[in-house]
Amino acid sequence: MDKQASLDFLFKPKSVALIGAAHTEEKLGGVILKNLLRFKGRVYPVNPKYNELMGLKAYPDFKDIPEPVDISLIMRPASEVPEILKEHKGRARCAVIMSSGFAEIGESALQEEIKRIGKEIGIRILGPNCMGVYNPYQRLDTFFLPYERLKRPKKGNVAVVSQSGAILSCLMGALEISNAGISKAVGYGNAIDIDESDIYEYLTDDRKTDVVVSYIESVGDGRKFIDKAKMLSEKKSLLILKAGKGESGQAAAFSHTGRLAGKYEVFHSILKQFKIQEAEDFDVLMDATKALSFHPRISPLAGKVGKRVLVITNGGGSGVLAADECMRQGLEVAGLPEDKINKLKQMFPHFYGVNNPLDLTAQVKDEDYALACHELKEQYDGFLLIALPNVQGITEKLAVIMKNCMVGINKPMVFHIAHGGISKKLTSLLEKAKIPVYPSPERAVRALKALLV
Amino acid sequence: MDKQASLDFLFKPKSVALIGAAHTEEKLGGVILKNLLRFKGRVYPVNPKYNELMGLKAYPDFKDIPEPVDISLIMRPASEVPEILKEHKGRARCAVIMSSGFAEIGESALQEEIKRIGKEIGIRILGPNCMGVYNPYQRLDTFFLPYERLKRPKKGNVAVVSQSGAILSCLMGALEISNAGISKAVGYGNAIDIDESDIYEYLTDDRKTDVVVSYIESVGDGRKFIDKAKMLSEKKSLLILKAGKGESGQAAAFSHTGRLAGKYEVFHSILKQFKIQEAEDFDVLMDATKALSFHPRISPLAGKVGKRVLVITNGGGSGVLAADECMRQGLEVAGLPEDKINKLKQMFPHFYGVNNPLDLTAQVKDEDYALACHELKEQYDGFLLIALPNVQGITEKLAVIMKNCMVGINKPMVFHIAHGGISKKLTSLLEKAKIPVYPSPERAVRALKALLV
Repeated sequence: MDKQASLDFLFKPKSVALIGAAHTEEKLGGVILKNLLRFKGRVYPVNPKYNELMGLKAYPDFKDIPEPVDISLIMRPASEVPEILKEHKGRARCAVIMSSGFAEIGESALQEEIKRIGKEIGIRILGPNCMGVYNPYQRLDTFFLPYERLKRPKKGNVAVVSQSGAILSCLMGALEISNAGISKAVGYGNAIDIDESDIYEYLTDDRKTDVVVSYIESVGDGRKFIDKAKMLSEKKSLLILKAGKGESGQAAAFSHTGRLAGKYEVFHSILKQFKIQEAEDFDVLMDATKALSFHPRISPLAGKVGKRVLVITNGGGSGVLAADECMRQGLEVAGLPEDKINKLKQMFPHFYGVNNPLDLTAQVKDEDYALACHELKEQYDGFLLIALPNVQGITEKLAVIMKNCMVGINKPMVFHIAHGGISKKLTSLLEKAKIPVYPSPERAVRALKALLV
Repeated sequence: MDKQASLDFLFKPKSVALIGAAHTEEKLGGVILKNLLRFKGRVYPVNPKYNELMGLKAYPDFKDIPEPVDISLIMRPASEVPEILKEHKGRARCAVIMSSGFAEIGESALQEEIKRIGKEIGIRILGPNCMGVYNPYQRLDTFFLPYERLKRPKKGNVAVVSQSGAILSCLMGALEISNAGISKAVGYGNAIDIDESDIYEYLTDDRKTDVVVSYIESVGDGRKFIDKAKMLSEKKSLLILKAGKGESGQAAAFSHTGRLAGKYEVFHSILKQFKIQEAEDFDVLMDATKALSFHPRISPLAGKVGKRVLVITNGGGSGVLAADECMRQGLEVAGLPEDKINKLKQMFPHFYGVNNPLDLTAQVKDEDYALACHELKEQYDGFLLIALPNVQGITEKLAVIMKNCMVGINKPMVFHIAHGGISKKLTSLLEKAKIPVYPSPERAVRALKALLV
């Protein structure tokens, strides 16, 4: 069986067993079972103490389940995992070992043993020490986090691939509040079999996914990683956050998943060489992901995008900060052509600052942004629009105006909207129109950059 | 009269005239008048067309006002300002020229003229092209931004000094949502007389102010700036955001306030030499300001603070990202002493990761953070606590526990709390207890750094 098909079992299973199911949400096995009640397919809770769990028939032993399952979730103490795994021969296509207590706390021999058993019985393994899989299109959710503790993002086009379960939950939380939607999410932990590269390969052809956001602490097979990351980023937007960059971070990463983080400088230069995008921190990762999710047509390797940015603002200082950040990020705030200057000076009141940044001043009107964008659409590759909503001229109508403007321009466009006044409402309307909004000039620039490299 | 007293007239006036007052909030002169209705002192609107404006007696001419005023706000077209200013002799101590249309649009001669008039008649000038003054303790508010468009922050210990009115409003908006409070705010625009240095001098002895956040595009008198900034930062926390760093940013700054931004590298190295804190962007400025506002006892020049940070987390990956950022910011994630490792291993379950970062895992309990802080309070200079609230063990009780813990430890402490679940409630409770909270590990580290340099 080919790998693609094998990971279909993981992301789109028809049947799921849960070894270590519990009757109450006070236990992690109960939280998972409750989340599995939403699943479209068949669920088999395993627990010898119960005949029934949360309304489902419970099975005393994994072997008692009446059919081979696509995935089996193992939530039992690490020491029990080898024996449990041996029972999987011919009874599951993939084991998701959620239990911790392996290489990350020094139990490398135990981890090697389950790796060996997996190979012997011909079963794929996700984990151990992992969060498992979330696929909103299948209503599949193996996370041990209750819904009231982590609201899941809506369905969408972003796949989240995280070595760390904690960061996976942080990414999901951040995506939820940023109006971006999810296609799939997976926490792969210690990665003794299925790793980031296998998942990249699968996502390369996944029609629901346009953007892949990947948190990596360590890579097992460097060559494979480069191949798969390159292949994926040729078709889709791949954005990587590498953790464990310095000595203390690397030590922390080792005690977290038991794999060596490797020299960061090497990793960084390889990504750069293959034009694979790297986010410098968590905030950039989330800001860029929202932009890429809203503008998925732009492939990072398409090679047609330039770096010329037009900044339009209704507050001079905010334009200066944006111009500074453009410089730091290698974007070009190129001046306006002479003929356009003359034309804009005729269009606008004499006190507007007709430069780049274009300063619409506190006496701005909503329409001005669209007028300027239309007039200069051929001259620039990306549009950074700043609206300080503290003046009367900025209204909710700006969202409709810019939505229509976007259709005519069809180039990357992001907004910075400062806090206060109609800020929240305007942000929500713009983001419904798929124009991403950020709370500072610099964050807006960094997000725009992700669309222009 | 000495300068200190002279700026008292600006920040704590007893009487204010408004030249260009209007009857409706559709005009900026009406917005200002409405905001002045809250003022504790006497208000004199000037407008020849009305006998009364918003319930106040209106004066046809500035000369008709029955007493000399402390400040006169001028909101009339630039071309009228010289004549208006000449009438001020003996009738006002300070003119706040809010009108734009001077050097920032090339009208340098006009600007020089009002500068000359001001000197001739012996009056201080704020502006032109400026936002004016806000002092919540006097209920003084000269901003031309309506309250429903810009909610003002509560009273507090942060003074905001901004060359740009737009950035001033952005800073106020950001402070309002970050639970920090304001002592005074001033937008000084083109700075033909009163500049950032005069204001620094005044704030050095202002008892309501512990933290000064300053947005600068250009400095007129470099020597004076260094003297006053140094003097201020020896007594209080001064945090500067310099805009106009690159070529395009400098051009934008020039067309904004008509002063040369100067070579950034020189500015940067001078601040570094005198240990004056610089924020790298708007977000760092706001995050650091909140931290400094909550921990005002720590003077940046006290020289007693070290750089050893303890990271405590309930999610491994978040700890790794924090450790990486500590390294980038020059903070030291130093290992635990041997005896403490042994003690903590006895205190905590065996699966906790007893290192730095200290990993309390998904099975964390609220008390664990305080136990670890107490045990290690002598070994570290700052405490970075990470609580991912997606697990059952993190509850609202954490806020009370840490409030008490802070009292015993009395060292800088910041939290990263991820989005989701009880995140909002917990953040609000912690910030009421004056422990600042940030939505990513890296932002928390950068804020902690401001307390440790």
